[in-house]
Amino acid sequence: MTYKLYYWPHIQGRGEVVRLALEYSKSKYEDVARNISDPDSARTLITEFLNNNNGVNLPFAPPFLIDGSTVIAQAALILYYLAPKLNLVSDNEDERLFAHQIQLTVTDFLMEVHDTHHPISNSLYYEDQIEESKKRTINFIENRIPKYLKYFETILINNKKISDWLVGSQLSYTDLSLFQIIEGLRYAFPYAITKLESKFPRVINVRNKIRDIPAINAYLNSNRRIPFNTMGVFRYYPELNKK
Amino acid sequence: MTYKLYYWPHIQGRGEVVRLALEYSKSKYEDVARNISDPDSARTLITEFLNNNNGVNLPFAPPFLIDGSTVIAQAALILYYLAPKLNLVSDNEDERLFAHQIQLTVTDFLMEVHDTHHPISNSLYYEDQIEESKKRTINFIENRIPKYLKYFETILINNKKISDWLVGSQLSYTDLSLFQIIEGLRYAFPYAITKLESKFPRVINVRNKIRDIPAINAYLNSNRRIPFNTMGVFRYYPELNKK
Repeated sequence: MTYKLYYWPHIQGRGEVVRLALEYSKSKYEDVARNISDPDSARTLITEFLNNNNGVNLPFAPPFLIDGSTVIAQAALILYYLAPKLNLVSDNEDERLFAHQIQLTVTDFLMEVHDTHHPISNSLYYEDQIEESKKRTINFIENRIPKYLKYFETILINNKKISDWLVGSQLSYTDLSLFQIIEGLRYAFPYAITKLESKFPRVINVRNKIRDIPAINAYLNSNRRIPFNTMGVFRYYPELNKK
Repeated sequence: MTYKLYYWPHIQGRGEVVRLALEYSKSKYEDVARNISDPDSARTLITEFLNNNNGVNLPFAPPFLIDGSTVIAQAALILYYLAPKLNLVSDNEDERLFAHQIQLTVTDFLMEVHDTHHPISNSLYYEDQIEESKKRTINFIENRIPKYLKYFETILINNKKISDWLVGSQLSYTDLSLFQIIEGLRYAFPYAITKLESKFPRVINVRNKIRDIPAINAYLNSNRRIPFNTMGVFRYYPELNKK
């Protein structure tokens, strides 16, 4: 069975946490919109799916996954659904729920990251909300990044199974998402994250261990990994970064 | 078994969708922080829980629910966990996942509502971000409210079970949350929502049917229902509303 992932073809965005899970587990999947050479047609494919009644459980937005007759949306829910099939979560129910809870917090974090460059509206260009972005980013760097990283660090410290992972004794999709958060922060807020990393050694250890996994390494070095850019969730803008 | 709900005692906020589910199902629950007469002590109770290692699955923020030895956070996940026990979701797995997917979209919507009055930072007062709030609210009213309501209306139209509810043939917790969205919009954006309601008759029908359910009616008329105010997610500010 080949999974079909629908997400914008030009960005990592909120779809990347799903791509990482599929790549880590070496799953067969088609990144549907990326297989269409014309970017406009690729985007149209997604919006038309959302605008038509296809007799399925309607997604509000991408990413969504098609698995046979199942259509499932919301990145965190896609991961919750996929993880048992991909051996990316414990089969202990309490741990499975905790992984999902952590992933929902990752979702919140990604939405907050996005709003650093779109504090006023998604319908406006970044260039039309730069001043507001500067204000939001200052607060985000000062208050929110440390708060979230401290949360992840605390979970790693508290893990009763004494593994290097967030949930239980094995790597789960939440660890892959934490890797993505660190990579994104390093790209978007390089000075801020440099100052912070030494405070969260367990988080950085997760990042390093994930980076060294052959399947992940191969993915990151392939053209399947879309480079960070100023269209996605994590964006680097010099004016939002102070040394 | 009495459920213990931990949420800020002075607002409906993100906890209200959980309160509605517990009230509709006439569940035994303790709204823990509300049972403490001093509001500061009540809030301290919650923050101390979050700051201490209690040997549990740590929440990032309230609301969280304690059910025996289980601690569970994130409003949408609390509902996913509770719903089968409270008969607030179908036992069909596909429908249960779809309900959760809808609820995650409700979560996104509530975060967007919140950011209409806090576009720059949660750490700043509304009064320090009024101009940015005006800009964000204009876009929210024009683009986002119609987009979300159209999504819910479309789900109601598409429901193959031809019920008046969002998922399958029976009322689910998502319908209670949709009720809450309409109530909140009517409070916070009375002119905007008045103009829109006739376009989304099935959504308004859900709201009206929920309102007439005796358990909900009794809750809304009790002092357990905290009135809308300018501290919660939905806030009415005259300067954000244009006739």
